[in-house]
Amino acid sequence: MVHPSKSIQTVRVQRARGGDVRRIRDWVTVEEPMEIRLAFPDPAGGPELVRSIAVTMRTPGQDFELAAGFLVTEGVLASPEQLREITYCRSGLGPQDYNVLEVRLHSGEDVDLDRLSRNVFTSSSCGVCGKGSLEAVEVQGCAALPAGTLQLPAEILAELPVRLRQEQGDFARTGGIHAAGLFDAAGSPVSVHEDVGRHNAVDKVVGEAFLAGHVPLLDRVLVVSGRVSFEVVQKALVAGIPAVAAVGAPSSLAVELARRFNMTLAGFVRDGGFNVYAGSERVE
Amino acid sequence: MVHPSKSIQTVRVQRARGGDVRRIRDWVTVEEPMEIRLAFPDPAGGPELVRSIAVTMRTPGQDFELAAGFLVTEGVLASPEQLREITYCRSGLGPQDYNVLEVRLHSGEDVDLDRLSRNVFTSSSCGVCGKGSLEAVEVQGCAALPAGTLQLPAEILAELPVRLRQEQGDFARTGGIHAAGLFDAAGSPVSVHEDVGRHNAVDKVVGEAFLAGHVPLLDRVLVVSGRVSFEVVQKALVAGIPAVAAVGAPSSLAVELARRFNMTLAGFVRDGGFNVYAGSERVE
Repeated sequence: MVHPSKSIQTVRVQRARGGDVRRIRDWVTVEEPMEIRLAFPDPAGGPELVRSIAVTMRTPGQDFELAAGFLVTEGVLASPEQLREITYCRSGLGPQDYNVLEVRLHSGEDVDLDRLSRNVFTSSSCGVCGKGSLEAVEVQGCAALPAGTLQLPAEILAELPVRLRQEQGDFARTGGIHAAGLFDAAGSPVSVHEDVGRHNAVDKVVGEAFLAGHVPLLDRVLVVSGRVSFEVVQKALVAGIPAVAAVGAPSSLAVELARRFNMTLAGFVRDGGFNVYAGSERVE
Repeated sequence: MVHPSKSIQTVRVQRARGGDVRRIRDWVTVEEPMEIRLAFPDPAGGPELVRSIAVTMRTPGQDFELAAGFLVTEGVLASPEQLREITYCRSGLGPQDYNVLEVRLHSGEDVDLDRLSRNVFTSSSCGVCGKGSLEAVEVQGCAALPAGTLQLPAEILAELPVRLRQEQGDFARTGGIHAAGLFDAAGSPVSVHEDVGRHNAVDKVVGEAFLAGHVPLLDRVLVVSGRVSFEVVQKALVAGIPAVAAVGAPSSLAVELARRFNMTLAGFVRDGGFNVYAGSERVE
């Protein structure tokens, strides 16, 4: 059985608990590949140019947001005005046609395809040492985020993961999905998305805001259900989000990146407490 | 402070708990990029050919095992006899030199570099639909795993994550690292490795066994500390491991892949119980 959202489905399972074995059907998170293609007019007047950019394993749902967010956080798209349309590339009639997306631009002039293929090739890492990775982010055009655009009361920060969980529909059923959410300084949810991939959930949130013309998100905090890697902080930085709060632990490079770009990074936000690794001046 | 293993280090942190804020130093998992290069003789007799294959964000430690495991599970290396040596590509004197690895082969003849770049480009996904992904694994040369090479008593299966945790050194200190372990049918640990990246921990375990000449691992079970994606099951399949046990949930495509290749997949292995999603005949 596939859920109408296509993001979860049931499978047969033998559940063993306390010596008892039962055959049941249980919900699992759907994982399917999605190909992102970039399409733009040929400057020489020939047929439209189409280039396959990436294939990511994702949970279906919010596919347009995911594609837009991926292209934004990889530094390919800077403004929603570059976009003409996003469509599914349907060649037949089956559900598989929903696994190829075409992102159509008004012009390919501003797109640095070399950087794109480099980024994708290197699994979104930008260099071969931690210092090089941080410098590559600066080269990408990111500047330190300004102070004074967001102030988070400590008691609201401590509650954010609970509120994220309240907004999550599928997690409770499958136990197997990551969530990312945008919240305002009062702790109200602006947008929450889920995905089998941690980075995809962040891209969906960023992509949705980008398509609505709301990037940079200088008065928002990004909340993630798991741990915080370099890449999650990098995506927040590119989207102009000054604060990241996580239920789990940050990595060393996530902490370094947040400090270098004047971001706030809180980890282990649970049980009424949290750790602040960077930018404590945004926490009241 | 950097731990002698270089896999964890301390950072300054403000810890807020119950209205109290303390400045402490706490351990975080180190995340650093590592570039994997493949080197082989020029068949035309010219200088050695070197090609950059991938950059992965990883936790330092077991770097040679990680590189070997990555190349095995991506389908590039089939036998340890193809290997001449693995070395750090040291150009200077700093610690950053430990972030570039050269994997030197006796010959480049058997290496399908086209497949490699395709795999890496597509984030290890093999197609643009779930069915295509499963078929691509068959095309890679993987056959269904045989029955009868591994029998797991239910009470041992239920205990595996506890035993994995007992073998983990760094996790308790940072709370921010994934673990993967190989166990025998009696539940004894054969090999346990940790990494900030879920897939890297699996690659380290597979790479270590590969370098020792122990692949395929037909009498072993792979235990992972988190969830199970398509890619984790694929890596186990390529290494000939017939059973995967996870603390967390599997994705839909992980279940499909395990069923198609006659593998055993158990999820939610915790609190004395577990769910079996595929291959229950290997569980007694």
